[in-house]
Amino acid sequence: MQNHPDLLDIGVIGLGVMGKNLALNIADNHYNVAAFDLDTQRIAGLLKQEKDERLAGKAQRIEGCSNLSEMLSRLATPRVLVLSVPAGGPVDGVCNALIEAGIESDDIVIDTGNSLWTDTVAREAHYAGKFVFFSCAVSGGEMGARFGPSLMPSGDAKAWDRIKPIWQAIAAKVDPTTGLPIERQEPGNPVTEGEPCTTYIGPAGAGHYVKMVHNGIEYADMQLICEAYQLLSDGCGMSASEIGQVFARWNKGDLNSYLMEISADVLSQADPITGKPLVEMILDKAGQKGTGLWTAVSSLQIGCPAPTIAEAVYARAVSTQKTQRQQLSKLLAGPQRMKMSAEEQAQFISQLENALYCAKIACYAQGFQLMAMTAKEKQWQLDFAEIAKIWRAGCIIRATFLQSITKAYQKASDRGEELANLLMADSFSNALSAKQLDWRQAVAKAIIGGVPVPCIGSALAYYDSYRCETLPANLLQGQRDFFGAHTFERIDAPAGEKYHLNWSHSERTIEKR
Amino acid sequence: MQNHPDLLDIGVIGLGVMGKNLALNIADNHYNVAAFDLDTQRIAGLLKQEKDERLAGKAQRIEGCSNLSEMLSRLATPRVLVLSVPAGGPVDGVCNALIEAGIESDDIVIDTGNSLWTDTVAREAHYAGKFVFFSCAVSGGEMGARFGPSLMPSGDAKAWDRIKPIWQAIAAKVDPTTGLPIERQEPGNPVTEGEPCTTYIGPAGAGHYVKMVHNGIEYADMQLICEAYQLLSDGCGMSASEIGQVFARWNKGDLNSYLMEISADVLSQADPITGKPLVEMILDKAGQKGTGLWTAVSSLQIGCPAPTIAEAVYARAVSTQKTQRQQLSKLLAGPQRMKMSAEEQAQFISQLENALYCAKIACYAQGFQLMAMTAKEKQWQLDFAEIAKIWRAGCIIRATFLQSITKAYQKASDRGEELANLLMADSFSNALSAKQLDWRQAVAKAIIGGVPVPCIGSALAYYDSYRCETLPANLLQGQRDFFGAHTFERIDAPAGEKYHLNWSHSERTIEKR
Repeated sequence: MQNHPDLLDIGVIGLGVMGKNLALNIADNHYNVAAFDLDTQRIAGLLKQEKDERLAGKAQRIEGCSNLSEMLSRLATPRVLVLSVPAGGPVDGVCNALIEAGIESDDIVIDTGNSLWTDTVAREAHYAGKFVFFSCAVSGGEMGARFGPSLMPSGDAKAWDRIKPIWQAIAAKVDPTTGLPIERQEPGNPVTEGEPCTTYIGPAGAGHYVKMVHNGIEYADMQLICEAYQLLSDGCGMSASEIGQVFARWNKGDLNSYLMEISADVLSQADPITGKPLVEMILDKAGQKGTGLWTAVSSLQIGCPAPTIAEAVYARAVSTQKTQRQQLSKLLAGPQRMKMSAEEQAQFISQLENALYCAKIACYAQGFQLMAMTAKEKQWQLDFAEIAKIWRAGCIIRATFLQSITKAYQKASDRGEELANLLMADSFSNALSAKQLDWRQAVAKAIIGGVPVPCIGSALAYYDSYRCETLPANLLQGQRDFFGAHTFERIDAPAGEKYHLNWSHSERTIEKR
Repeated sequence: MQNHPDLLDIGVIGLGVMGKNLALNIADNHYNVAAFDLDTQRIAGLLKQEKDERLAGKAQRIEGCSNLSEMLSRLATPRVLVLSVPAGGPVDGVCNALIEAGIESDDIVIDTGNSLWTDTVAREAHYAGKFVFFSCAVSGGEMGARFGPSLMPSGDAKAWDRIKPIWQAIAAKVDPTTGLPIERQEPGNPVTEGEPCTTYIGPAGAGHYVKMVHNGIEYADMQLICEAYQLLSDGCGMSASEIGQVFARWNKGDLNSYLMEISADVLSQADPITGKPLVEMILDKAGQKGTGLWTAVSSLQIGCPAPTIAEAVYARAVSTQKTQRQQLSKLLAGPQRMKMSAEEQAQFISQLENALYCAKIACYAQGFQLMAMTAKEKQWQLDFAEIAKIWRAGCIIRATFLQSITKAYQKASDRGEELANLLMADSFSNALSAKQLDWRQAVAKAIIGGVPVPCIGSALAYYDSYRCETLPANLLQGQRDFFGAHTFERIDAPAGEKYHLNWSHSERTIEKR
């Protein structure tokens, strides 16, 4: 059956910061949008913004709906609906309301929130027959949503075929030769050239899982930058704007990334109220929405080492306990402050730049290994070169070296090999090997100077642990066999053969279990 | 109704290492035991061991049963049954079999395995009306179970009243004046004097939660010792038996603990097969049963910083990836090996002793804070002085300084205060303040020398983070507001007031949200 030409292309439900900007982005790309929110002011705000942004003579492409039934009646069938509501209960609330409003079995509902990936798996099954529950994790914050986010869709492959043209249109774009984002933030004039930052990730749950790990890496990356800031501030006594300049310089080198860029910007920003550096007026209690801790939890459950991501989550937790810190700062002794000559300080800043780079690579290695281990368990066929590719623009962790990650995975794949750990790629093992001595110096100075570097330090311990052909887990297995008869394997016996020493007898004999 | 005098006092189901030893321990304390296992050889083994251990003329107190119906018929009512089966499905398997066999509603079933605490909560509700599902976490490994474990019972308070005499009899005992374990490992001659290491922890789930955190601390404590071992071995080039001697010496000081004692023992042990140090013949892949990772997961979910426990779990995960480590050991560069004169080495060993002590305290602080935060959420009234008391003997983490933890909590409680963090207690803040410079030196040397110390290092970062009245989370909140409009609080505005800077506009204005 032909759709009437007046019918609209896509519905957007939930017009908070993300939903509103996604709607404007879709409209910019010549799709007609039906928009709904329980808060009618948000609908009015969206329509006004579209009107203000449109150049004279261009048609409005967004239409407000006063309820979900109206939205369903205004959309071409089979319908495509985008949900942008908070993760958890609200997603099911809207889904159930859509069923009541008469949604049909071949309509597609795309959850774009930060849902827990296991919820997404459950929802696909739960709503099957009522409608097609699809998901697409979105990264890029409000500006990404407006002018080009990184999009991680997963679920029913046929649904993907239907939404793919829209998704490729609204996604961030990368210049394929340089690997750099093509940035143009002009309403009504979207970027249409370049490689779109979206690819089909896999079955239900896979996209939200990959996005979750993206956020885990983001937590760690942000905390690494914060530790560098504290070292330069508390350690070296530099001002916020001086540190902003250092970060801006670093952003021109190997550390080039969106997070480095905006950190330099934040540090250079004056507070409109007091005129002081804004950062010094911001309370040092970090908020969080859960994706970082979910990543850490998943890594623990699957047995993948991701210590730097977990340390970043804990660092936020410590930050919220300000009262305890205020009390303990008076009770716990520290060392003398770091003292450096100008020359020593310049050397330290250069060591710290290398330390930050190495720690960042270690975080990415943890995140990619986590995705690989989970993909193996869930039998997802994740394409890591593609995933690194769609993170090159639009998303929060976009960075120059994602191009190197893409190449490392492509190279391995060309050889028919799997890259079990990113640190095995030549490009990264060489870079870290060259910079590791500086990394050590920076961490050691932080430790002697009393400035906490939980993530930069944990990443170095991760690096050093993987450098060890032999770890002291042999003693640990001895302890476990001693107190719990948990048995151990021997280096001179076949793998899987279990031995137990009879520790509690006067004559200690060994037996094969 | 009076029970027939021939009926037995208590049933033990599951005769693995723990169940068998619990049965012998109960029998030693003059209770008559009905024992059952699906594996009849285990029943026979238990009966033979009891016979072998009994002095001439003493009556056997354990009776084997060939099925659960027979066991129920042999026990005085209301019955008390102890489950010692693997956590998870087997617990429910036995519970359902007991229902089929005719268990009655006032009978008590005590789960002594390492069950996940939330499963315990669910089981109490699930089996209500069929029987009383009670739980008692057990620590102490096989020897603890045999001659006195630390017991953490929780659930129905009336059930506790009934089993309390048996529990106090079989628990480990502490000399109340010294706080040290009373150790006597003689079959048929149990320790009857001293304070028993068992106390009612709280409602269903509380006991298994406390035991889970105990195990989390245990993971960290074991890993700390392993890191010290690797530093002395790979770093200083000492032999296993030399390191064993260092540990034996440390065990006489502040570090006195069961784990230090057995580590010294393991390091001094020769391999019965090759004659080499046993530890060097043990494969360096650590096993785990889940309680450590559950602790880390719980800490992440509740927002309690427990980085050293998580790092210990990750260290086990890295240890299992030996193939990756073998490959990476050839690809990743490290520093030159540590080089020290004899004098420098002696100084380093002394610094490491202090570092280990400080890191241990930090782990305990993390564990106790985690219990406190969960207790608050679950409205459990946990008595931390009592919990530290019952860990002084019987359990794996028993250590001299648990007496100091008990005193710290008692002191706070006498003042009507809560101890939000163990580091706030004078005894610990003073000790750590005195030793922190050595701690830094030991960690810095490890880092410069390329020996991984994820836990000793993470504990120091934890200490230093709590020393910071201001953490760099102000920059982090600035980043979050920049890319996601997540808002921030200001240091010069009331708590809870949210601000947002209009980062994407040419004129950046600030607004209260």
